[in-house]
Amino acid sequence: MEFPLLTPELEEEFERRLSRVRMAMLENETEALLIGSTVNILYMTGGIYRGYIYIPQTGAPLFFMIPPAEATGDNEVNIRKPEQIPELLAERGLDRACRIGLEYDDLYYSEVERLKKLFPGAGFSNGSIIMRQARLVKTEYELNKMEEDGVRQSAVYSRISKVYREGMSDVELQSEIERLLRQEGCLGYLRTAGSRMEINMGSLLAGPNADEPSPYDFSMGGAGVDPSLPVGASGVILKPGMAVMVDMNGGFNGYQTDMTRCWTIGEPSDKAQKAYDCSMAILHELESLGRPGVEVGELYRRAVAIADEWKLSDYFMGHRHKVSFIGHGVGIELNEGPVVMGRNKSLLEENMTIALEPKFVLPEIGALGCENTYVVKSDGLKNLTTYNETLKQL
Amino acid sequence: MEFPLLTPELEEEFERRLSRVRMAMLENETEALLIGSTVNILYMTGGIYRGYIYIPQTGAPLFFMIPPAEATGDNEVNIRKPEQIPELLAERGLDRACRIGLEYDDLYYSEVERLKKLFPGAGFSNGSIIMRQARLVKTEYELNKMEEDGVRQSAVYSRISKVYREGMSDVELQSEIERLLRQEGCLGYLRTAGSRMEINMGSLLAGPNADEPSPYDFSMGGAGVDPSLPVGASGVILKPGMAVMVDMNGGFNGYQTDMTRCWTIGEPSDKAQKAYDCSMAILHELESLGRPGVEVGELYRRAVAIADEWKLSDYFMGHRHKVSFIGHGVGIELNEGPVVMGRNKSLLEENMTIALEPKFVLPEIGALGCENTYVVKSDGLKNLTTYNETLKQL
Repeated sequence: MEFPLLTPELEEEFERRLSRVRMAMLENETEALLIGSTVNILYMTGGIYRGYIYIPQTGAPLFFMIPPAEATGDNEVNIRKPEQIPELLAERGLDRACRIGLEYDDLYYSEVERLKKLFPGAGFSNGSIIMRQARLVKTEYELNKMEEDGVRQSAVYSRISKVYREGMSDVELQSEIERLLRQEGCLGYLRTAGSRMEINMGSLLAGPNADEPSPYDFSMGGAGVDPSLPVGASGVILKPGMAVMVDMNGGFNGYQTDMTRCWTIGEPSDKAQKAYDCSMAILHELESLGRPGVEVGELYRRAVAIADEWKLSDYFMGHRHKVSFIGHGVGIELNEGPVVMGRNKSLLEENMTIALEPKFVLPEIGALGCENTYVVKSDGLKNLTTYNETLKQL
Repeated sequence: MEFPLLTPELEEEFERRLSRVRMAMLENETEALLIGSTVNILYMTGGIYRGYIYIPQTGAPLFFMIPPAEATGDNEVNIRKPEQIPELLAERGLDRACRIGLEYDDLYYSEVERLKKLFPGAGFSNGSIIMRQARLVKTEYELNKMEEDGVRQSAVYSRISKVYREGMSDVELQSEIERLLRQEGCLGYLRTAGSRMEINMGSLLAGPNADEPSPYDFSMGGAGVDPSLPVGASGVILKPGMAVMVDMNGGFNGYQTDMTRCWTIGEPSDKAQKAYDCSMAILHELESLGRPGVEVGELYRRAVAIADEWKLSDYFMGHRHKVSFIGHGVGIELNEGPVVMGRNKSLLEENMTIALEPKFVLPEIGALGCENTYVVKSDGLKNLTTYNETLKQL
């Protein structure tokens, strides 16, 4: 097995991530982590293999690899099943941790229970929290990946108006955008956290469908085309007067950017333009507000206040159903920390990446708003998703 | 909230599913089930909402609905969080179950732990096993849905040769097929069980890439285009001599069919044709063998024996990396029970649905074989995926 990231050139990159993980382990009073989810194996190695990683507080992590993964390096061991792990740890004197982190939010119940049995006398903590905390702040290597995502996603968005044809349905337009994304190199899979995030390649909302509530944890709803996947485009024909909101997959390289742009069919109504302008006003206000040390909840409260000043609160972040956040971290997963909601008292840190998405749902017209993915820099927010922000016509 | 399936016309359908679930509960000595995964809520209601279903051994199930879901019927109750469930059960005298099934294989560890705390004195069992057992045998309603999937998936496969252009890469061809699928109404999301099933809209394997091992639990591998999603098409240009295997999304209505067909670029070599013919020989033998009462493992052993007779064992179900199954149940999820592997001693039952996929990987040429989704009928297997089975040229 070759770890894509663990090449000699990138050894320092891996050390940086490991030290972030260990800092989070210390804060969470955890002496060792045993990781098995794809998202966290990807973070620790730059690739995905079948198996586990054991991370002690000091010394090299041990990589347990189930075929077809092949152990080749010093700290790699082939196993057939996790029950072989305790003996292999004991051989290396790594079996003395009293409090072990396991991924409570990334592995199924039966998977964690199986791993708990490997450590009879030990106590356990939620390793998912530790890994999410480590992943909050991105390295330069990660930021470069996300910058690349933003460029490619922007390139695709710039082609959207060219694939629109009069009389199309929302699903037809979405399928054309999906094709553009795939041709640009989009992997076509949205890696998300949590069990209520089923979706295909993203969301396209047109007209009144935007006001249909959805059971999923996305910012916007939509009925979907079938009750088995009640989110997003519903098959409506695109007609003059409708707003079309595109919030689609920006994942090209293991990282993702999250970007939303809107179009109208024909001239936008005053109401549509006003909602869009308010979204832009919020976004630009947050751009000037966001910097290291600012409380995350403050971004949310400022957004709500502006929507209120514009007398658009009834439509802000949903109409029939509202969500209580206006943004979220983004990286390997679409929905990472921090969640930009009122009660989040944590502070922005340099090199966090956050998607901000102040959006409005006008029941007769559709969804309106703009979303960008930003890096928190010492002097403010740097936008990674730079495609033209004006409300355009299809 | 309207349950799409729980209309008066479909009341009997729901009763049939409920009685299947209760039979499985009895067999697993479970007095009540508390369900919260999307897949099982979909099975019990025909749609997806945010919340839970409590299923006692007798009496009506209780539907706990978190907004935006709205309780409207007699047995529907709105809640904000699962911690409200115990009191609502007590009010209805439903709080006496001593052994409660929770979805150990469908919910994350933290989700199940939270639900366990609702029932202090109770014992617990794996409700995922119960629900999978209930879903093993399909109702006529479900079979009609899957028949529809097979027809639509076949219609798309019949158009594949029309979107091929000389000099295309595997990813480009795949993106064209994805567009055909979406235009035909494919939902674009593959609902799978287990945490090692990351994929976009399916797999297209061409040439030597078919022999690249993948860490996921799919039957075939492929390097993918990026180490963050190491499965399927890898960006190779399609060239004469290559075999192209298409195994893509057949999900149009909450159910799925699973179908694989192969093409060659130019004339197939004798070796490629032989491997394909052997796959067909296995498939036709299994079609005549499969019927209610036959041991599932027997299908696997017969397949292995035929590959051996043809002296193709080295390439059967993979080459560098082999999997130990030749098929699986299919329905709401792509990978349901029964798994068609040697040690599965369970018996086929009428109206089970299984995908059989005897496949070969020839390292220089690619993957070859055919896959169909069948219903087990009293007189044998009925094929739902009827698109032409011959090895064709692109």
